Amino acid sequence: MSIAAFDHPFLSGLLGDDEVAAVLSADADIRGMLVFEAALARAQAGRGLVPVASADRIAEVCATFTPDVARLKQATATDGVVVPELVRQLRQAVGGSAAAHVHVGATSQDVIDSSLVYRLKTVLSLFAGRIDVLLHTLDALDESFGSRPLMGRTRMQAAIPITVADRVASWRAPFARERDRLAQQALPLQFGGAAGTLDKLGAEADAVRSLVAQEMGLLDAQQWQSQRGFIADIGHLFSLITGAAGKMGQDIALLAQGGDEIALSGGGASSAMPHKQNPVAAETLVTLARFNAVQVSALHQSLVHEQERSGAAWTLEWLILPQMIMATAASLRLSRSMLEAISRLGAKA
Amino acid sequence: MSIAAFDHPFLSGLLGDDEVAAVLSADADIRGMLVFEAALARAQAGRGLVPVASADRIAEVCATFTPDVARLKQATATDGVVVPELVRQLRQAVGGSAAAHVHVGATSQDVIDSSLVYRLKTVLSLFAGRIDVLLHTLDALDESFGSRPLMGRTRMQAAIPITVADRVASWRAPFARERDRLAQQALPLQFGGAAGTLDKLGAEADAVRSLVAQEMGLLDAQQWQSQRGFIADIGHLFSLITGAAGKMGQDIALLAQGGDEIALSGGGASSAMPHKQNPVAAETLVTLARFNAVQVSALHQSLVHEQERSGAAWTLEWLILPQMIMATAASLRLSRSMLEAISRLGAKA
Amino acid sequence: MSIAAFDHPFLSGLLGDDEVAAVLSADADIRGMLVFEAALARAQAGRGLVPVASADRIAEVCATFTPDVARLKQATATDGVVVPELVRQLRQAVGGSAAAHVHVGATSQDVIDSSLVYRLKTVLSLFAGRIDVLLHTLDALDESFGSRPLMGRTRMQAAIPITVADRVASWRAPFARERDRLAQQALPLQFGGAAGTLDKLGAEADAVRSLVAQEMGLLDAQQWQSQRGFIADIGHLFSLITGAAGKMGQDIALLAQGGDEIALSGGGASSAMPHKQNPVAAETLVTLARFNAVQVSALHQSLVHEQERSGAAWTLEWLILPQMIMATAASLRLSRSMLEAISRLGAKA
Amino acid sequence: MSIAAFDHPFLSGLLGDDEVAAVLSADADIRGMLVFEAALARAQAGRGLVPVASADRIAEVCATFTPDVARLKQATATDGVVVPELVRQLRQAVGGSAAAHVHVGATSQDVIDSSLVYRLKTVLSLFAGRIDVLLHTLDALDESFGSRPLMGRTRMQAAIPITVADRVASWRAPFARERDRLAQQALPLQFGGAAGTLDKLGAEADAVRSLVAQEMGLLDAQQWQSQRGFIADIGHLFSLITGAAGKMGQDIALLAQGGDEIALSGGGASSAMPHKQNPVAAETLVTLARFNAVQVSALHQSLVHEQERSGAAWTLEWLILPQMIMATAASLRLSRSMLEAISRLGAKA
Repeated sequence: MSIAAFDHPFLSGLLGDDEVAAVLSADADIRGMLVFEAALARAQAGRGLVPVASADRIAEVCATFTPDVARLKQATATDGVVVPELVRQLRQAVGGSAAAHVHVGATSQDVIDSSLVYRLKTVLSLFAGRIDVLLHTLDALDESFGSRPLMGRTRMQAAIPITVADRVASWRAPFARERDRLAQQALPLQFGGAAGTLDKLGAEADAVRSLVAQEMGLLDAQQWQSQRGFIADIGHLFSLITGAAGKMGQDIALLAQGGDEIALSGGGASSAMPHKQNPVAAETLVTLARFNAVQVSALHQSLVHEQERSGAAWTLEWLILPQMIMATAASLRLSRSMLEAISRLGAKA
Repeated sequence: MSIAAFDHPFLSGLLGDDEVAAVLSADADIRGMLVFEAALARAQAGRGLVPVASADRIAEVCATFTPDVARLKQATATDGVVVPELVRQLRQAVGGSAAAHVHVGATSQDVIDSSLVYRLKTVLSLFAGRIDVLLHTLDALDESFGSRPLMGRTRMQAAIPITVADRVASWRAPFARERDRLAQQALPLQFGGAAGTLDKLGAEADAVRSLVAQEMGLLDAQQWQSQRGFIADIGHLFSLITGAAGKMGQDIALLAQGGDEIALSGGGASSAMPHKQNPVAAETLVTLARFNAVQVSALHQSLVHEQERSGAAWTLEWLILPQMIMATAASLRLSRSMLEAISRLGAKA
Repeated sequence: MSIAAFDHPFLSGLLGDDEVAAVLSADADIRGMLVFEAALARAQAGRGLVPVASADRIAEVCATFTPDVARLKQATATDGVVVPELVRQLRQAVGGSAAAHVHVGATSQDVIDSSLVYRLKTVLSLFAGRIDVLLHTLDALDESFGSRPLMGRTRMQAAIPITVADRVASWRAPFARERDRLAQQALPLQFGGAAGTLDKLGAEADAVRSLVAQEMGLLDAQQWQSQRGFIADIGHLFSLITGAAGKMGQDIALLAQGGDEIALSGGGASSAMPHKQNPVAAETLVTLARFNAVQVSALHQSLVHEQERSGAAWTLEWLILPQMIMATAASLRLSRSMLEAISRLGAKA
Repeated sequence: MSIAAFDHPFLSGLLGDDEVAAVLSADADIRGMLVFEAALARAQAGRGLVPVASADRIAEVCATFTPDVARLKQATATDGVVVPELVRQLRQAVGGSAAAHVHVGATSQDVIDSSLVYRLKTVLSLFAGRIDVLLHTLDALDESFGSRPLMGRTRMQAAIPITVADRVASWRAPFARERDRLAQQALPLQFGGAAGTLDKLGAEADAVRSLVAQEMGLLDAQQWQSQRGFIADIGHLFSLITGAAGKMGQDIALLAQGGDEIALSGGGASSAMPHKQNPVAAETLVTLARFNAVQVSALHQSLVHEQERSGAAWTLEWLILPQMIMATAASLRLSRSMLEAISRLGAKA
């Protein structure tokens, strides 16, 4: 719990985000996986492939089941994925004849990827809400200071005077753009079975998949287990958001260095110079933008996903995407507090 | 002319693409910049800001003007951009009273970015056409061999039997997806003047911008000179394409190593082992996917574009995007020749 | 505690490493920071700048002091660094006249960077020890199977026969090379004060710095607070190690796909196909190599460390280096278990 | 010849470098390859494996032979490497019985990698010389302005006053450090034959390799064809250099924005604002640092070099390393001109 600054005992004060971290917790992941297993059983019952009583029993257990995490960890060490052991424990908890109806026709990737997408839905919604707040805050800045003069700067040199409204508009537009994309982003179920062909479901494959998607509130789509463009799209979108915030943060830090076109309240202390007011949030926005700009490369590397499932490429996503989400969460949180700390923008009246 | 393998005297045999390279040539860039200058003059004439005769004269010269490239190079060394010197030469060529009506209210970034977007239109169209061919070729493979068995492989191990049709579908879907995106990609004019406010055009600013966009066949949009999400989107899309091809190439290379589920004609020679048939195109698709996966990071770094124009961030794009375009061009070319070299896919009948 | 797979409740079974994670814990970091503060007080006492009794008191408290982490976290949120609050708490714990002699002439970066380097010493030593074990394991493989034939493969095609000894030598050499580098890596103290000039220490600056380095067992060196080549070197070295392991893992995975030139015991289960034996460790080595290959880019971005201290560039290192360390730790651990699982290498006798 | 800005008809004014580009030209590469072939023949003659007359004939032809580049390009398209066709042409040019003694026991990778290393020797020497000049220039700045006050800045805020000497020292140290590394960098011959075992040379393998290395002025070393740490080291070193220059450039650009602590002569023009003086070189140093920081990731990806030779990983290096060399060359050139344009550093006297 100290490796990532995002959930580090003290660095998370700067870089963490409790609300979004909760969605990425192991618990929430397990919940998402159980939502998939419940939806799968129900869908199969809906198509007469599994007794309704079994599906009810499975769904009931999935709603509250708490697995033995120590054994999940142990099994992940050898299996490379948590699902075989989770399913084993779940079958034991379900018991009776229903146990045999758990996870029928599904594979690890269906469970893990669909749990991810299911939680991404929450993440995207949280981000959209935060950007809405940012847009309002920017509008308020515009209203308060928009007509004040600001020196337009190109190539880090004074160019011609613009207004605060012009600068604020250049910060606002990318947030509005990515806000729209968050709203429009399709979130597809992953369901393909052992090798992507739903071989165990025969003629019922499409119907079951459609019902699982409906149960989970996800888009029904062909399996994408070896086609990872969706994951790269998500990472790209997050990096566009942190990039927009990083540009704004860099601008604020440069204004703060200049000193006469901005007034900031708060700001960080220095252990050597108690008098200093550091634009900590502004700088951290640059950090988070550069962080995501690096990470996005890994998701593109993972597009080279060989055959029906690449352990190498898929596992790489696990190391990257949660952190990009956290970086984006922290960036939106810090953007807000940075903007709210602006007590004046533009030249003194 | 030897730095990039894409236009290297002999490496371009493998990695080049004449058709797309032409669109990225300095000549084509200059043409695009002159198209902008002509469109600008005409638009301003359309709004009565410039005499029609001046606009006609400017457009006439722009259609054929060939600048002194040696002096462009010399000036770029100190100015960091080619436009001031290009405009100086263009004004001289236009001569008379019309000379003063060249480049009115515009800045370097308007000219360079708009020339880029103007040429991207051609690039996207070429890529879409090539993907169409690939889709047809994949369909033909499916028709010829789709029903044959193929060993489905997960984590590089034999999993369960699938068909050639299943594997081909997993190659096809991402190409079809990115094909649609190429068609839907908006291509916005960049026009903002010295600091993004079109300060010289006053109340006519929006009307002129709209006319320039119309003249150039681009989307009319607010200036985006410090908002580089569009550039990152383009790079992302290209990397999705090379990623789709890289996944397919990796699969083919693995099939070729196995040996009994594919037959390839052609293939590369070895200087040490004349008997060998190397799956050169398949491997190179992996190379190009990993290349673009690295480059895309730079375009995300460039989102931190400070103030009204960042020389640092903007110049970085110049070093990256043309190469991503060429990598994508080469990838599509090689994808086609690789697929056409497949004489059998799936187990022997 | 779920963001990074390296210390995730169940993913850490695959990707974690308890031994190295302990060195990266917040506790160990705080310990390292207190070692610095103790060393600083002692060094200043050694030069007569601080009463010996004060230094003794400070060192005594530093040996056991446990800060209020919740308040550290809260303060890091505004200060961007943990040190001002840690020093405040430490001064309170020290109490009396010695309190004023805590952290004299030092700044946050001295404390944080030096704690990092102090712990890197342990990390490098652990890695060197693990590579020694790998080298022995490779030697044992060579002894057991070295003379057996193996098909040499170039461009993923059979080339000419080589021996197992040849392949093992190509795995071994990079480990031996990086083992030597770990042993030779200089680990410099960071000590520069508010702006790198040790301004508070006057003529005693060099002498105090030398003593602090000696106390901490680090190399005495000029401050490097805005010169981050050392950090990039460390990341480079770690990525060379994971790259060496990734090449070996890729080779093993390809051998396992072929099937007749290797026999592996253990291997991961599949939730859909109980019969499968997946080369999980081998694939994960590729994952970790590609992970570090991406991360290293961020440390190079951080070389653009403006002025006397860049919050933006420095904070980026915090997000990257601990994870590169963990990736390297996991890679070395998995390399060992993968090699130990080889029950035959080369063609069957 | 327009894809890379480094040799673009007009962008090379800013980003090119004729001296270093010549070393990377296709001609220079061919020369390096022929130097290898000549050295190989001589070495084999030295060990009695080839008639001295044949070796003399081969060496004589290699000294002046100009291949048909169009055919090289055509063959590279199918072979993926230029060497088989180059050797074919060379054998034809040599003629007679000596033709059969060309390229004996060697493979494409021996020729291409060794030509690269042979030319890297020149590159490293040029870079070392340029850094020497930079160090002198920095010393001169220190002598002229070192005692002047400069505001020390941390987190982009005024911290405490330092001197120009302090800042200059922080720029100088990394250049001095990397200068030493350039001098110490080992440059190993690559010579392994078809699969790295020099199988055709039998007991004479080591002796021949040693002689080839001696002939080429390279380090004699075991083949490293699938062990690419050396290439990653080279890229790392180049990125450290551009990073050092990028930090300095960022500092200069920030000083230029502030305006009163620096005076610069020269600087770039703007097409919209003739009065502006842009710190073009300073900004471009940041660009080049970020460029190399991205590229270095690809060389680390290439460490996953499967089996005895990976076409995919090796070809990726070809796309990356020449550009990193050019970026470094341009960075050193621009560093010099930027420093020479400083007419005052520090507060006005």
